[in-house]
Amino acid sequence: MPYFDAASSAPLHPVARQALQASLDEGWADPARLYKEGRRARLLLDAAREAAAEAVGCRADELVFTASGTRAVHSGIAGALAGRRRAGRHLIVSAVEHSSVLHSAEVFEADGGTVTQVAVDRAGAVTAEAYGEALRPETALACLQSANHEVGTRQPVAAVAGVCREAGVPLLVDAAQSLGWGRVEGDWSLLTASAHKWGGPSGVGLLVVRKGVRFAAQGPVDERESGRAPGFENIPAVVAAAASLRAVRAEAAEETVRLRELTERIRARVPQLVPDVEVVGDPERRLPGIVTFSCLYVDGETLLHELDRAGFSVSSGSSCTSSTLTPSHVLKAMGVLSEGNVRVSLPLGAPEEDVERFLGVLPGAVAAVREKLGAPVPETVVSRDVLVVDARGKRCPIPVIELAKVIGDVPVGGTVRVLSDDEAARLDIPAWCEMRGQEYLGEEPADHGCAYVVRRIA
Amino acid sequence: MPYFDAASSAPLHPVARQALQASLDEGWADPARLYKEGRRARLLLDAAREAAAEAVGCRADELVFTASGTRAVHSGIAGALAGRRRAGRHLIVSAVEHSSVLHSAEVFEADGGTVTQVAVDRAGAVTAEAYGEALRPETALACLQSANHEVGTRQPVAAVAGVCREAGVPLLVDAAQSLGWGRVEGDWSLLTASAHKWGGPSGVGLLVVRKGVRFAAQGPVDERESGRAPGFENIPAVVAAAASLRAVRAEAAEETVRLRELTERIRARVPQLVPDVEVVGDPERRLPGIVTFSCLYVDGETLLHELDRAGFSVSSGSSCTSSTLTPSHVLKAMGVLSEGNVRVSLPLGAPEEDVERFLGVLPGAVAAVREKLGAPVPETVVSRDVLVVDARGKRCPIPVIELAKVIGDVPVGGTVRVLSDDEAARLDIPAWCEMRGQEYLGEEPADHGCAYVVRRIA
Repeated sequence: MPYFDAASSAPLHPVARQALQASLDEGWADPARLYKEGRRARLLLDAAREAAAEAVGCRADELVFTASGTRAVHSGIAGALAGRRRAGRHLIVSAVEHSSVLHSAEVFEADGGTVTQVAVDRAGAVTAEAYGEALRPETALACLQSANHEVGTRQPVAAVAGVCREAGVPLLVDAAQSLGWGRVEGDWSLLTASAHKWGGPSGVGLLVVRKGVRFAAQGPVDERESGRAPGFENIPAVVAAAASLRAVRAEAAEETVRLRELTERIRARVPQLVPDVEVVGDPERRLPGIVTFSCLYVDGETLLHELDRAGFSVSSGSSCTSSTLTPSHVLKAMGVLSEGNVRVSLPLGAPEEDVERFLGVLPGAVAAVREKLGAPVPETVVSRDVLVVDARGKRCPIPVIELAKVIGDVPVGGTVRVLSDDEAARLDIPAWCEMRGQEYLGEEPADHGCAYVVRRIA
Repeated sequence: MPYFDAASSAPLHPVARQALQASLDEGWADPARLYKEGRRARLLLDAAREAAAEAVGCRADELVFTASGTRAVHSGIAGALAGRRRAGRHLIVSAVEHSSVLHSAEVFEADGGTVTQVAVDRAGAVTAEAYGEALRPETALACLQSANHEVGTRQPVAAVAGVCREAGVPLLVDAAQSLGWGRVEGDWSLLTASAHKWGGPSGVGLLVVRKGVRFAAQGPVDERESGRAPGFENIPAVVAAAASLRAVRAEAAEETVRLRELTERIRARVPQLVPDVEVVGDPERRLPGIVTFSCLYVDGETLLHELDRAGFSVSSGSSCTSSTLTPSHVLKAMGVLSEGNVRVSLPLGAPEEDVERFLGVLPGAVAAVREKLGAPVPETVVSRDVLVVDARGKRCPIPVIELAKVIGDVPVGGTVRVLSDDEAARLDIPAWCEMRGQEYLGEEPADHGCAYVVRRIA
């Protein structure tokens, strides 16, 4: 039963389990107390902090443990913005950050701050130049992930950190997806991470604030974790997090090569095995274990169910798999197809046979979904110059399927107007045009939705 | 090696350990995902929520899991205050709440809110009348602990909830110390608790918001835990928390009787065994496992070290055991002696022999500390009418020891002025006077500190 969604949460690493169980007996007491159980808990906490700091490449007194990666991001951004309030109230984030960063930015904006979202290219990467252009005299903080969680693209963190450093602006790096693979390079100021992403336990995040970075923790605090993460320390989990980080780092060099070869295999073979597929994300500058592709004329949720029935656990950034019915903001920002989206993220040790089995199962699963939805087979008839398809009330991927079905019905040079009230269509119709070599003319307001206008070229 | 500080953190209950280990294999995946690992995690989370809600006496959809009891308090107070912002910006808390409540109140005050602290009697209890008097038309929220964490006194929660309900003001109950013993009675609106206090794992708090209570979660949130507790769920810990809550409840009836008898024994025998001791907290309306007393002429930290050397782990609300050098705000609000303070809080299953051993060890430990500090033995000589003792630069319990040493040097009717710059003296000199039957005349400003004026009566 291959689990291919390590980027959501990795199964507990054996070292994490061992460390957790071992420290349940020693780590339950209050480390602030003077008696022996407290001193023992304090020793465990201090040792875990040293180990985690060593893995991050920072001083132990720069690192605090939080209750989750999300908390680390929320507290890190809020504290850095407050600490730099005198500089100004401008925040820079990339358009493809994790939702915890974007939620923090929303709260900051609602509170009167200004946020600049730095755009990404089709591979999902920002540039240092774009961060440079976004910087203002009143910029308090810039945030950038070390690598993207949905498509695996690595960001040019060191270069962006350099640009920010020159402007005297601290850079917060969300290293949730990459910390297990290695230290984050460059002269960053703050760093956040999440233990369950590298095989550590749930309930542990890291927040690193470099010495000299202005920081003012927000909300009620207490005396724990340098006043940056209130609440009783979860020492067994913290010990397990630090131990497993060290363990996965020891495996990283070998697994980087192995998993990279496996994801490369998926990148290369999926387009050969499945028609109408777009593999997304940077082919070179990427995390070893993540590969993402989108399948035209496919409903992501149904495809996930098909794959789950075949024993494969993967995730999707398609709108139909989310509760909000909007496609992944990452795929949207990249301008790539979101329908029928599949993210494969291999855990450490994922066996080659499982990947081969996946490649064996995928074509049939996609074909089954397409058949169910009545996806188009090559068209013939030519007729009118302008054709209107009413796909209102129909959800992704139906509007694109309807478009594909009729594009052959207009002559070359003729147009199809797709009426749709589905948010995903805004992204997927232009993406389909690019994949199919048709011309996307833009959208126009229409009764209860939009008209997406496509000119037939091919 | 008896651990008598369960009120700080209880050792992991065997059921918690078992449940934690069992769910490490099933509970690590993202419960929001559609594949089987996600569905399994979701089932565990749902079952834990049902079990915890049953123990609290609420609906499952009223209860969310937070990363700690402190987080539950911070989020609960902030959310309730924001939800009732239109009612006004007035908050009521008791003077003896846990620091997480008081820190929340401070943040609210710094943000322009108004806070009323309800005073307690010498036993540490509030009255419903006092809460009634504190209520205003613009009161947004009232907070009250179910029982005090330092002295064990139970609060009249049901009566206070009734008064608040009548005024249309929600009451948040911090049930951290009592939830393991039973449901919180009365018509409260919000409730918080902390799993490691009842033998559950660290890293789990509960926040209950009754249906119909206006609540607006503050700060960045996400789709987890009904938008009230952002960050990846810690499912193995949550499962362990719920299972152990059920387990300790099953033992509660029997352990209530047993521990109550043991703490009653300490309450009765400590004053017989150790001279100059004040047992504090309500003798009747109290938690079964907590007993607290203060020893005149004793430095709390040194006493804790003596007891630790003898194998007993207890805590103290004395100023000299805290990093801030101020005595416990609870003892201060009760107006009782804070020096040489010892809190014994027995964990479930604490053996009778350990308690007897403690009673055997305590008198020698106290005597050793007193001897080290040169505490007074009965005095004789009489001389001047006014005597000034300069205890500036000396920390608790030295000022009181100096006072006790010279009180016999003035005639009955004469006065002693103790110069001191130690914050604890403000509390402990009046408390000493009450214990000794001397008259405390008040404090006067003095160069670098205060003069505490005492008239000799006895």
